[in-house]
Amino acid sequence: MGQRALDIVAIGDAIVDVIATCDDSFLESRGFEKGSMRLLTEGQASDLYRAIGPAREISGGSAANSMAGAAALGLSAAFVGQVADDQLGAIFAHDMRSLGIRFDTASIAGPPPTGICLILVTRDAQRTMSTFPGASHELTPAALDRALIQSASITFLEGYLWGPERPRAAMLEAARIAQQADRTVAFTLSESLCLGDRRDGVLGMIEGRLVDVLFGNDHEMRHLTGCADIDECIDALRSKVGTLVITKGAQGAIAVRGDERVEVRAAPVATVVDTTGAGDQFAAGFLAASLSERPLKACLQAGTLAAAEVISHFGARPQTDLRQLVAW
Amino acid sequence: MGQRALDIVAIGDAIVDVIATCDDSFLESRGFEKGSMRLLTEGQASDLYRAIGPAREISGGSAANSMAGAAALGLSAAFVGQVADDQLGAIFAHDMRSLGIRFDTASIAGPPPTGICLILVTRDAQRTMSTFPGASHELTPAALDRALIQSASITFLEGYLWGPERPRAAMLEAARIAQQADRTVAFTLSESLCLGDRRDGVLGMIEGRLVDVLFGNDHEMRHLTGCADIDECIDALRSKVGTLVITKGAQGAIAVRGDERVEVRAAPVATVVDTTGAGDQFAAGFLAASLSERPLKACLQAGTLAAAEVISHFGARPQTDLRQLVAW
Repeated sequence: MGQRALDIVAIGDAIVDVIATCDDSFLESRGFEKGSMRLLTEGQASDLYRAIGPAREISGGSAANSMAGAAALGLSAAFVGQVADDQLGAIFAHDMRSLGIRFDTASIAGPPPTGICLILVTRDAQRTMSTFPGASHELTPAALDRALIQSASITFLEGYLWGPERPRAAMLEAARIAQQADRTVAFTLSESLCLGDRRDGVLGMIEGRLVDVLFGNDHEMRHLTGCADIDECIDALRSKVGTLVITKGAQGAIAVRGDERVEVRAAPVATVVDTTGAGDQFAAGFLAASLSERPLKACLQAGTLAAAEVISHFGARPQTDLRQLVAW
Repeated sequence: MGQRALDIVAIGDAIVDVIATCDDSFLESRGFEKGSMRLLTEGQASDLYRAIGPAREISGGSAANSMAGAAALGLSAAFVGQVADDQLGAIFAHDMRSLGIRFDTASIAGPPPTGICLILVTRDAQRTMSTFPGASHELTPAALDRALIQSASITFLEGYLWGPERPRAAMLEAARIAQQADRTVAFTLSESLCLGDRRDGVLGMIEGRLVDVLFGNDHEMRHLTGCADIDECIDALRSKVGTLVITKGAQGAIAVRGDERVEVRAAPVATVVDTTGAGDQFAAGFLAASLSERPLKACLQAGTLAAAEVISHFGARPQTDLRQLVAW
């Protein structure tokens, strides 16, 4: 028996964000480059947690945030990711399911516990992330529900989860299932591609024509292609992915599909509070508009509107009804 | 050997707030009176949690929130309260200690787990609370550090924790230790006085002249005294407590000390987002000003400024440097 058709299913880190504010001097004292992401061991995460100020906990994870955005935009969404059977895992699961997102990945007993991301937000709204992935990196291909992936119009994969072997195998397997079912495969790059040899694997996936829609910011695109100029990046990638989407923060975004290239400005924001999740929500807005078969420019605009909402408050998931924001 | 002198020590619930927004209709469907507080069992809390939307987790607890405010106002503060040895307990402890608040109560193994308060915030910024106190109600007089209480200028006690027998005994014991050391005892009423026979015990404590500073809102004062009119409440209580402080939400606050009676308006707020913690922060501001030996009116004003800050964002603890707000 087939499953009810789904708009989108994502595979990504299942983590809870621990968000605190800090001064620039704290980042400097730790040698953290502002805006960067690093992976921590559990011990390192405990040390850092002890050193930071009071925090708020909000469910996170890049692709999971995008699914929260997709649900807020009215899409039917599912998420595959690994939490442990602990309080933070229960919080993560609640926050997905309460949005109507299907989340059936069975929790593991642990250790490791559910992953966390310590997010330090400076006065300029930049976020610097330190992630202890915990259970998140224990995801295996066995967690995949083949019928679920076959039923989804889009399978959305997260670059942050590309590093560890078993989750990467799960994502590759999901991409193949989706492609065989004639579905769209979207992949979002992440800064963690800079870690180790992840880049080659992503390039291999792209060269193998497994990626239909590729998201990334200008920095990530340059790193992926090795090109210094964004036009060179586009030339290097445009023939290998169906749609190439490049975000440029406050400078807006570019999309390239075949011979078509469109560019939009960023949507205005009264006060930028916390830039965490901007890329995640951009992807949600873009894909939601795509599913409604909106023109490429309208897809970019939906992305910038969803990103503008999320950077106007703390936390990487929407806090308002995005459907009113991007009416189509 | 004596301990370093402390400005204030509080005894209260050690819980983590789970904050979600909801429509009025959700409250109605559950039969929750807007603005109210109820106690839940663990099972009831799980049921309600499943029914509410995505949430953010921020450490809470009425007196603990006041200590966060006191620390943000530059006071040296300590907190006594019971968490379990679990992830939410670790979050609560971190959020206290990272503010420089001394928090030495040893966690218990559990069950029960660390307590939570499910806070539903409606569009009008009113908060409706459902508390599963968990480990918080396992506090016993054995957790008291006599020297710590003797060293603190003020011992601050929370009405919410007045219900269960052992925490009540701990608070009474702390009040006696403080009084014998010639320290100030402050008590904050709470809506939970309406539950069971808590009222009589509080009245007994007041009649016994154990309370130097009594905080409460107009509703709580009416319930405590049985008087319909706020002036009658004042007449009933003014001879029994050194300082009587009555908050009236947007209508400001009144303080009565001996023959002196002063009243102030509420401080202006651009957008009221979430009224949770208004009373907690009011008490922190008032007591901080008292410790600086400010006139009674200035104490009220400090209270209203601290309350105004906290209702302008989600969460019951200050997010800005309160010292700049109430410069004295």
